Amino acid sequence: MPQISQRGNEMPASPIRKLVPFAEIAKQKGRKVYHLNIGQPDIKTPEAAMLAVKNWDVKVVEYSHSAGHLSYRQKLSQYYKGIDISVDENEIMITTGGSEAITFAFLACLNPGDEVIIPEPFYANYNGFATAAGVKVIPITSTIENNFALPPVEEFKALIGPRTKGIVICNPNNPTGYLYSKQELQSLREIVLENDMYLFSDEVYREFVYDGETHFSAMQLEGMESNVILMDSVSKRYSACGVRIGAFITKNKEVMATAMKFAQARLSPPSYGQVIGEAALDTPKQYFDEVYQEYIERRDYMVEALNKMQGVYCPTPKGAFYTVVRLPINDSGQFAQWLLEEFAYENQTVMVAPADGFYSTAGLGKNEVRIAYVLKIEDLKSAMKVLEEALKVYPGRTILSL
Amino acid sequence: MPQISQRGNEMPASPIRKLVPFAEIAKQKGRKVYHLNIGQPDIKTPEAAMLAVKNWDVKVVEYSHSAGHLSYRQKLSQYYKGIDISVDENEIMITTGGSEAITFAFLACLNPGDEVIIPEPFYANYNGFATAAGVKVIPITSTIENNFALPPVEEFKALIGPRTKGIVICNPNNPTGYLYSKQELQSLREIVLENDMYLFSDEVYREFVYDGETHFSAMQLEGMESNVILMDSVSKRYSACGVRIGAFITKNKEVMATAMKFAQARLSPPSYGQVIGEAALDTPKQYFDEVYQEYIERRDYMVEALNKMQGVYCPTPKGAFYTVVRLPINDSGQFAQWLLEEFAYENQTVMVAPADGFYSTAGLGKNEVRIAYVLKIEDLKSAMKVLEEALKVYPGRTILSL
Repeated sequence: MPQISQRGNEMPASPIRKLVPFAEIAKQKGRKVYHLNIGQPDIKTPEAAMLAVKNWDVKVVEYSHSAGHLSYRQKLSQYYKGIDISVDENEIMITTGGSEAITFAFLACLNPGDEVIIPEPFYANYNGFATAAGVKVIPITSTIENNFALPPVEEFKALIGPRTKGIVICNPNNPTGYLYSKQELQSLREIVLENDMYLFSDEVYREFVYDGETHFSAMQLEGMESNVILMDSVSKRYSACGVRIGAFITKNKEVMATAMKFAQARLSPPSYGQVIGEAALDTPKQYFDEVYQEYIERRDYMVEALNKMQGVYCPTPKGAFYTVVRLPINDSGQFAQWLLEEFAYENQTVMVAPADGFYSTAGLGKNEVRIAYVLKIEDLKSAMKVLEEALKVYPGRTILSL
Repeated sequence: MPQISQRGNEMPASPIRKLVPFAEIAKQKGRKVYHLNIGQPDIKTPEAAMLAVKNWDVKVVEYSHSAGHLSYRQKLSQYYKGIDISVDENEIMITTGGSEAITFAFLACLNPGDEVIIPEPFYANYNGFATAAGVKVIPITSTIENNFALPPVEEFKALIGPRTKGIVICNPNNPTGYLYSKQELQSLREIVLENDMYLFSDEVYREFVYDGETHFSAMQLEGMESNVILMDSVSKRYSACGVRIGAFITKNKEVMATAMKFAQARLSPPSYGQVIGEAALDTPKQYFDEVYQEYIERRDYMVEALNKMQGVYCPTPKGAFYTVVRLPINDSGQFAQWLLEEFAYENQTVMVAPADGFYSTAGLGKNEVRIAYVLKIEDLKSAMKVLEEALKVYPGRTILSL
């Protein structure tokens, strides 16, 4: 029997995946499970964008250009100009989700054995894309005590070796909800330029920024044309995760030409998704205002509810729709499993994502979980009540002084 | 300025890509260009399948299961059972086009530095997927004199070294149109089992088989459950290239579990494409009968027309909708460029794919081109006339005795 590959062995499984059988158990017991564990919003996809697909009148669903429909890229360039990111249609490649943009970035810019520094906790699938590309992830720890701010420049510099070729950030951040400031981006600029590296910036939550803050993009940094790769997606912006449309954006012509060779091999991004993505660019401001109101209400409720629970600490996330929260527990994996397997409050329970899956450094995140506030407010309220009651009786509860 | 990756440098550009600017020149001169160079069929996508997308009534376009919608996989399992391939829904993973199935196969089964043997000429993008995965392609030459039959077993055995971990076939073949016989598959079985290797079988043209021949699938080989990976796609079967839906199929549970980790990292295949793919499984036989009639008429016309031209040899392809044809020329790249840049017959010209791009061995394919018979018969007739006239006056014409 032939062997599977070493990278296949090393490929990390999703941190949530191992909980799925326990969620099944809870459901078999007839319990309602509130899913706080995944980033699948319940927000409706804009109707006009979905209508564009229904009205798309072609006889043959053909391959598109490998970089995506020109009309879409042109319109997308206008969208970016509207948010002060100056890119033209040749600096944008449409990808199969943000996932493929990350893959192309790693394949085009990095050699097997090269390293990228990523502030942890970070989006766990970066590990998977890195493993597939033979790239090594070097974590740099951001802490809940510091509300997950960017670690100091000196700490970055201490990690840079001969194989360090880039820094990956997610801004606003999944899983922490942290929004990097302009100053923090400027610090990254300094490190990146000094070491002739790439800055891979995942900005798929760009529109989810709260409290009057503004998003500062890596593409707005000066003198970084050769260094910045922007990775984007329509999934969260328009609650259209299933269309699998993202974008790979850079002003570095050589990198774009190289990424295009990988794009040409896979022929084209999905046609229907491109139609919906292009139409979604006309989504009226009102849609985003309503989404904003919805999320801010959820966030505010959740943060307050969590911080009222004894021994719980939740920083106030400034963006995205996640938070990493510290609980009075010492094994978040066991806690998450216990919630599903053992616990119920009024026949309900919650599913959370253990935060250790978002850290590369062993041992970190054991007393933290990620919560996605993607449930409507009534459900979120019930879920918070369930969590509060669960913590009161959890056998593995620890006493923390904050 | 940071460097691009070595694999990015090594990544081959599409063999047709370099001709694109010359096609533009022809169009600027007001010439009609017949595209014999690409596998984009002009056949209509089945209407009922497209209607399924229009009628798909969801409010949120969510992620699907990473292996694809369960209902689709269940129905697909019935489709395979109907053609004597026994696989259940857990042995099928829906992928983003056949392209992603190939990528997952290489990532899950092969280590960087491992080798796969591929009969050449072969689908040029295998080079790209191999380069991305760090896999080395070892070509084994099939010849036009032999109508591109499978090379003898001894030639395979002579190429097998310690890093040889698999054989890749495309059956029916792109670019040659060759259909591998049951005996040829049995020969491959022997080699693969003897050397504990994988057999990666790309069968996306399965339905395009002519002259009463039947397709024998690698999945029908006995005692090969651990060795065979089937890579499939809806692109050609239903003329739906743009939906980007394929399948990764294996009875090897460990390989499937490993491929699933790569699939989970990229979250899910495109939702709209899955809807159309599932609905397309109900396409009535009449559709395929009409498509068959159309292709057989085109093929027969083309083969006869080509073989009537002086110094031209075209084997009769038994499957797919391509042929590799020998022309009285000694540089097919120059010839293809000349057709677009210089030549016109009644203000028309043709674009062909130089066959050297489908060979790994340097120097081969220089007097061959791939022709895709994806044009309606009137256009194909005109295109053949253009080619005939072009060969009469091409300055680089050679005299070949066949």
